[in-house]
Amino acid sequence: MRLRNKPWAEDFIKTHSTIALPDPESYKGNWKSVFNNDNPLHIEVGTGKGQFITGMAMANPHINYIGIELYGSVLVSAIENVLEAGTPANLKLLNVDGSKLKEFFEKGDVDRVYLNFSDPWPKTRHAKRRLTHANFLRLYEDVLVDQGEIHFKTDNRGLFEFSLVSMSQYGMMLKDVSLDLHAEMPEDNIMTEYEEKFSAKGQPIYRLEAQYKAK
Amino acid sequence: MRLRNKPWAEDFIKTHSTIALPDPESYKGNWKSVFNNDNPLHIEVGTGKGQFITGMAMANPHINYIGIELYGSVLVSAIENVLEAGTPANLKLLNVDGSKLKEFFEKGDVDRVYLNFSDPWPKTRHAKRRLTHANFLRLYEDVLVDQGEIHFKTDNRGLFEFSLVSMSQYGMMLKDVSLDLHAEMPEDNIMTEYEEKFSAKGQPIYRLEAQYKAK
Repeated sequence: MRLRNKPWAEDFIKTHSTIALPDPESYKGNWKSVFNNDNPLHIEVGTGKGQFITGMAMANPHINYIGIELYGSVLVSAIENVLEAGTPANLKLLNVDGSKLKEFFEKGDVDRVYLNFSDPWPKTRHAKRRLTHANFLRLYEDVLVDQGEIHFKTDNRGLFEFSLVSMSQYGMMLKDVSLDLHAEMPEDNIMTEYEEKFSAKGQPIYRLEAQYKAK
Repeated sequence: MRLRNKPWAEDFIKTHSTIALPDPESYKGNWKSVFNNDNPLHIEVGTGKGQFITGMAMANPHINYIGIELYGSVLVSAIENVLEAGTPANLKLLNVDGSKLKEFFEKGDVDRVYLNFSDPWPKTRHAKRRLTHANFLRLYEDVLVDQGEIHFKTDNRGLFEFSLVSMSQYGMMLKDVSLDLHAEMPEDNIMTEYEEKFSAKGQPIYRLEAQYKAK
């Protein structure tokens, strides 16, 4: 487990080890043992305070969810969200670095990747840090099932424009695109904290579903 | 030549046959003879009143342009625009149906297709009429050079969302996407009549460049 700086967060996370799993490397290729079922596994990279992944877990009991968050002090809020939701059995959290997914997941372990309101890294010299950069798309492909999907939401126009091109050039196929998600709000949309904040300001929320090509 | 209803328009078009070419079938595979040079040929399907194609022709004298417009009464305005611009030698108009491109162009005749503010046909049952429907994408591919490009602008969110998915599923690659073209206006952007009107209202203008895969 990588923690950043805050000992109180580290302690809190350790005392909630049934929610925020320690030693996720040990489940690589064997996540079904964690959930005791064969349901699909959807992960969120950069889960933040966990409102989205918790809402999804409660709305979809037959799907397993893992929220990944690097910052321990942020994951604490996600754990609190999970506790408030009654600790759904189909939801776990990992306090790990999303760029190290392959340490925790084998090819085919993951059925879908969610990215929500990822850091836009607006400067061109930081483009490689964007979670939809080709390097990350390759990383997700390495843990996803064949023809796996990425579902991505953001309020950041520049990041969304970049992501459309990046995914297309990687060879992914767009399945669905919305350039103003809340204009025709899908009934099953689970909002993130950022989404509530930005849409309240009247800013459009962008969303896409993209699929990897068959190998 | 197909004309719609207006005899006065038909007469006007006939008297300007050096701009609006009659019998475009006769140039199929031989458009270089029309322009007396080997420059690339860019066409606009649905050229309307011709502000865009005329602006492009004046800004890019080493590219040949053909504007295609079905409605004779509309093409009259385009001819007037061309006359006002001093009748650039690198610009011709065709009063024909864009869905019949293959009657006028051979594979490889066209280097780029422009679509600007095309009719959104918002009803699902009219999806096949949208100029970015797969059937049209196939049509453009049949007249374009290998790895040819489509450059598309619209203010219509639904049409743009549809087009991103349609082009992606057709196998095209997105090269560039802007979800608010006028936020960082490119210096070389030539505005259409619609673009001036809608952007003045503060509506975002969407733009993409997409490329066909190598065959």
